Amino acid sequence: MHDDPSDLVAAAAFSETERDAVYRAIFTRRDVRDQFLSTPVEDDVLQRLLTAAHHAPSVGFMQPWNFITIRKPAVKQQMWQAFSRANGEAREMFEGDKKQLYRSLKLEGIRKAPLNLCITCDRTRGGKVVLGRTHDLNMDIYSTVCAVQNLWLAARAEGVGVGWVSIFHDRDVRDILGIPDHVAIVAYLCIGYVDQIYDEPELQKKGWRKRLQLADLIFEDGWENGQEQSDPGEQSAS
Amino acid sequence: MHDDPSDLVAAAAFSETERDAVYRAIFTRRDVRDQFLSTPVEDDVLQRLLTAAHHAPSVGFMQPWNFITIRKPAVKQQMWQAFSRANGEAREMFEGDKKQLYRSLKLEGIRKAPLNLCITCDRTRGGKVVLGRTHDLNMDIYSTVCAVQNLWLAARAEGVGVGWVSIFHDRDVRDILGIPDHVAIVAYLCIGYVDQIYDEPELQKKGWRKRLQLADLIFEDGWENGQEQSDPGEQSAS
Repeated sequence: MHDDPSDLVAAAAFSETERDAVYRAIFTRRDVRDQFLSTPVEDDVLQRLLTAAHHAPSVGFMQPWNFITIRKPAVKQQMWQAFSRANGEAREMFEGDKKQLYRSLKLEGIRKAPLNLCITCDRTRGGKVVLGRTHDLNMDIYSTVCAVQNLWLAARAEGVGVGWVSIFHDRDVRDILGIPDHVAIVAYLCIGYVDQIYDEPELQKKGWRKRLQLADLIFEDGWENGQEQSDPGEQSAS
Repeated sequence: MHDDPSDLVAAAAFSETERDAVYRAIFTRRDVRDQFLSTPVEDDVLQRLLTAAHHAPSVGFMQPWNFITIRKPAVKQQMWQAFSRANGEAREMFEGDKKQLYRSLKLEGIRKAPLNLCITCDRTRGGKVVLGRTHDLNMDIYSTVCAVQNLWLAARAEGVGVGWVSIFHDRDVRDILGIPDHVAIVAYLCIGYVDQIYDEPELQKKGWRKRLQLADLIFEDGWENGQEQSDPGEQSAS
């Protein structure tokens, strides 16, 4: 075991310019559904995005993720059909104005984006007992989500848009991509260059729901107001 | 409903300097357990970190997160006791060399870090049916994990270290912080300034497990090698 102080390196705050770049990625990242250009995502850019994902934190250094790139039109077409079937079911769950508004939203870019990417979590990697996962078996899933967010922010810096599509039956995605049962499907992403994005979350722009006030979400030293009185994010369809 | 093209703004790639800053945050972010300085995290810095978290993607713009800051020594002490009890159980799950190595690892900075932060997910926010969550009820949890990762990367840029402690019984955290049952506990973070961090993941440095080869984790157009032959991350304790 090493515990040599020389393993430690300086960890000062970034310069103001660098710090602003990190915040810029965070604040201007969008869930892209329709602004994808057809320009292919080059291999070196994809490698950088996947390397960013691979450097996510992972419980017990488990690195439980795999990355399935999807470019074949026939596979995308099957995924789009699976989405369409699930989205038809989803639409029926909303009522009144919300159903109308839901119908008008584009919620995926499966065929338009030149690249799709499925990010999975192998629940068995690292053996039966994983450090840090002893009391919460879902920590490996959380690690995988951190990988998704790393990739999403790196993509923003590369001028690449990312959209997360979640309206699928798990069984459909598993069958189409041949994913074994011990592997969880965490995210299905549509990826491609963009030259324009929304300046605010699209669902806010389109009257679905508003951004909450951060101050209302912060508690000190314990939970306060255990029951919220109302949902201030609710936006009437307009 | 708005669909004015003026809602769209330019989304070019960042400058090389800005892009490098984003990657620097991603590659030098560490799970900090012991390098915390006692310097308090100022309110304006904390606000920036929480604002970064609040700008994570969220399913249906649900924004299901809450942030409980913990600074009271008595609360930290209770959390540390809950950790210690769970960690004693965890230690017994490993065998031989691994148990010895496990025992030597510091896995939390609850009392050393000036600030602790519990990030939760309100499963009921946004009502019974949430856009994008119709076919995977855990999407709200994933959104909350994206908020954790945003905060973690912003913290790196601020010179602030973050460590995620996962070795707790859910019931203990819930009781200590008074978290209601409809709210999921997603992450418990230790937060504080650092002036040194490890140059590689601490668990790799200390011989627990190695970084996997990225190339081995990438598949094209479907899952390949459904059963992995061995686990190349396994590292003999040394």
